[in-house]
Amino acid sequence: MSKKIDVTELILRDAHQSLMATRMAMEDMVPACENIDKAGYWSVECWGGATFDSCIRFLNEDPWERLRQFRKLLPNSRLQMLLRGQNLLGYRHYEDTVVDHFVEKAASNGMDVFRVFDALNDIRNVRRSVQAVKRAGKHAQGTICYTVSPLHTVPAFVEFAEQLVEMGCDSLCIKDMAALLKPQPAYELVKAIKAACGKEMRVHVHVHATTGVTLVSLMKAIEAGADCVDTAISSLSLGPGHNPTESLAEMLQGTGYHTELDKERLRKIKEHFAGVRPRYKEFLSDITGVETDIFDSQIPGGMISNMESQLKQQGAGDKLKAVLEEVPNVRKVAGYPPLVTPSSQIVGTQAVFNVMMGDYKVLTGEFADLMLGYYGTTIGPRDQKIVELAANQTKKDRITCRPADTLKPEWEGLRSMALALKGCDGSDEDVLTYAMFPQVAPKFFSTRHEGSKNLGKDPSKAPAPAPAPASGDAGKGPVQTTVAYEIKLNGKTTKVTVSPA
Amino acid sequence: MSKKIDVTELILRDAHQSLMATRMAMEDMVPACENIDKAGYWSVECWGGATFDSCIRFLNEDPWERLRQFRKLLPNSRLQMLLRGQNLLGYRHYEDTVVDHFVEKAASNGMDVFRVFDALNDIRNVRRSVQAVKRAGKHAQGTICYTVSPLHTVPAFVEFAEQLVEMGCDSLCIKDMAALLKPQPAYELVKAIKAACGKEMRVHVHVHATTGVTLVSLMKAIEAGADCVDTAISSLSLGPGHNPTESLAEMLQGTGYHTELDKERLRKIKEHFAGVRPRYKEFLSDITGVETDIFDSQIPGGMISNMESQLKQQGAGDKLKAVLEEVPNVRKVAGYPPLVTPSSQIVGTQAVFNVMMGDYKVLTGEFADLMLGYYGTTIGPRDQKIVELAANQTKKDRITCRPADTLKPEWEGLRSMALALKGCDGSDEDVLTYAMFPQVAPKFFSTRHEGSKNLGKDPSKAPAPAPAPASGDAGKGPVQTTVAYEIKLNGKTTKVTVSPA
Repeated sequence: MSKKIDVTELILRDAHQSLMATRMAMEDMVPACENIDKAGYWSVECWGGATFDSCIRFLNEDPWERLRQFRKLLPNSRLQMLLRGQNLLGYRHYEDTVVDHFVEKAASNGMDVFRVFDALNDIRNVRRSVQAVKRAGKHAQGTICYTVSPLHTVPAFVEFAEQLVEMGCDSLCIKDMAALLKPQPAYELVKAIKAACGKEMRVHVHVHATTGVTLVSLMKAIEAGADCVDTAISSLSLGPGHNPTESLAEMLQGTGYHTELDKERLRKIKEHFAGVRPRYKEFLSDITGVETDIFDSQIPGGMISNMESQLKQQGAGDKLKAVLEEVPNVRKVAGYPPLVTPSSQIVGTQAVFNVMMGDYKVLTGEFADLMLGYYGTTIGPRDQKIVELAANQTKKDRITCRPADTLKPEWEGLRSMALALKGCDGSDEDVLTYAMFPQVAPKFFSTRHEGSKNLGKDPSKAPAPAPAPASGDAGKGPVQTTVAYEIKLNGKTTKVTVSPA
Repeated sequence: MSKKIDVTELILRDAHQSLMATRMAMEDMVPACENIDKAGYWSVECWGGATFDSCIRFLNEDPWERLRQFRKLLPNSRLQMLLRGQNLLGYRHYEDTVVDHFVEKAASNGMDVFRVFDALNDIRNVRRSVQAVKRAGKHAQGTICYTVSPLHTVPAFVEFAEQLVEMGCDSLCIKDMAALLKPQPAYELVKAIKAACGKEMRVHVHVHATTGVTLVSLMKAIEAGADCVDTAISSLSLGPGHNPTESLAEMLQGTGYHTELDKERLRKIKEHFAGVRPRYKEFLSDITGVETDIFDSQIPGGMISNMESQLKQQGAGDKLKAVLEEVPNVRKVAGYPPLVTPSSQIVGTQAVFNVMMGDYKVLTGEFADLMLGYYGTTIGPRDQKIVELAANQTKKDRITCRPADTLKPEWEGLRSMALALKGCDGSDEDVLTYAMFPQVAPKFFSTRHEGSKNLGKDPSKAPAPAPAPASGDAGKGPVQTTVAYEIKLNGKTTKVTVSPA
């Protein structure tokens, strides 16, 4: 008998996060929702830190309203979110009552499945949010951040899986944000987890496509007993994104495994996003092929495109390769953290600093905190010289307790700060928005009434390539008609035509 | 013990044929040859019908000279070519002595491995060339064109494989030009062939990447006992092309299989072609992602990009989808031929005619010949009504014999026609060039002395987007010196200097 393999569709969250810098506007997703709802997915991932951030930072869109809309548009679907454990959707640890409030509000606004992870796989950092999810009667998925290092062995991952199950997680997820999970390790890891945690314990597998091998890894994970895999509809797949949903479905034909996805609906979803994609051309990742160098640098898909655009903004686009090569060094110094938000940003930014200014000449505040234990514990020892450097620079102590234990109750304080902001509606949701992104929320609250912005552009309205200059016409007399010039722009000479305004 | 998996590198033939319309100039390949030669490939595919055609049609390059150059540049490598059986590198059947001459000359100019196929899997159409390869002391690889139809069962393919082995082939190839080979059928087919032909009989697997599933199929083929798989270096892979060589190598880690490819050399080959690729932008396939609709249309990767550009030239780019949908119908009428050169072109062009002018209102000469048996026999019966239509239109009889048996000796005739052409050097190679492409060879012979053309273009010399006119400043008077302006470009204000051209 053929085993049904469940599928989580990523198009509404991780696919556009990885491929178009999380810029997709809600109105570009709405028309596909009916088909997504009825295609037969196990769950639809649609919310997370970057989508929340992008909503208020770029799209002038209320992320809570987006969630409520999804709830209405996807009545038959499990809505799924990615939650950064004690970090929630932000970049720091929150005190426990904020965690409780956040999970409660996400649940009451419609979230069903909470994929909870900690960037360091520190069990202490996921406990509070898992407990809150259970209390809300929702599905708590405990997440193992997959990475490769001398210390990340199958037994080490299995031990963490067992801790997650013991904590009450309803399912487990192997999260391979950097496409490092090769077929044989995928097989062995799923097999070992199933053996240790019982075959009834659901195992989900999330992989990116960046290195080109991970559809094979999904096949092997399925053969080892995985219950659900994550994919994205083909028109917004591959590169730093994910394996195509349709390919996964076709791949299984005759294997003893099958999905129950509706092929016609998948086609319609594909066609919809194929139409949307060109409108976000300016945000699309330059990477469309595979990049096996990532097996060395270990940087997750979503991070590469962010790093690319950060370096370009600093006029250092040519340094990308050097930075990618520095990342493994920084990682070793930090005790081999997996690279996922926020550790990917912290390690990545320190790698940028090391390349631009010399090794550890400047420590970012976040990197210093990581070295001092303020994000939790890492699997390996941290480099003592850099820990001392961090302590000296920040005048902070090294800690070994659960980081959130150092925090004082903060809900009431956050609440009064949020309520003082112009445009804040006084809801707990608004307080949470402020708590997650205190730098961005004030402006968002004040402009929210203007409505959401769509950053997609009609590609047919993009400026056309300049025609070749009409030779010999320039300089003959007063400029009354279109004339050709040579223009020096950022040091490059370009021939252009100029017409009277 | 881990089994070594051999790899055939496709970058010098099928990769640029499938992704950039076969336009790559020899000089863009030369710098990578040393690394290719030393990377540890089983063979390097570098020659075939489209490369030969493109050389004389577009690149003013002698394909025989290209072969001799490869022989010098790749002294340690098996050079491999794709040979269309009795069609050689052309689009019609040749009389047997032409086949003998061609194979002999290809061998004496440096070819080692001849992958011989017939588009219809008609064993009678490959016999003469396989015999010629054996006589030349070279490696004859018998090829099974893979396709999907109600009649293309594993036993049917195995029967054909046995005929190829019986004929004396040194190895077998499963050739999946349309990326239709799914993992489980790949496993079953390789297993069955090995069982029937003996496990010492080498099985090579050639797949395209178009549908996104075929790296998994390679994994399964390897598990079933395949000896060698075809891949292309990552910077010119995927889409209608092939799976990335580096991903194949990484995928196998820990599986009990391994390649012995040199990772550092692969990186250098990748970087070289990553640099070449943008120069051929105008020829690059629009398709970069996966297309699972091909499981229905069954059109091979190389063919889609050709069809796209043909339809665009006729101003009917919007008809691509309708044509793709018509192809399976035409295929059924023709008795389910696999779709590969020339059957893909014949079926594809008839599908275009059916869509543009109505079903079978006009039959192409080639399609009529296919229906009447002039390309050989198909696995299924052909539609009798259309066979009659073909007979009436062409005033030709239906034949059932080996098509080449209807041909009269033609070598001397071809030779005297070739020698009469301006610029023909009188060599057998030139006669064969003329024989393959009688329409194109005359012009090539006459321009050969001008040397080869490189159609790649420096992307930095592409025209820049036109800036918006400088508001208010233009039209004030003659521009005689360099002046600074603020120019609004895509909504951003930029300071530039303007000089008379």
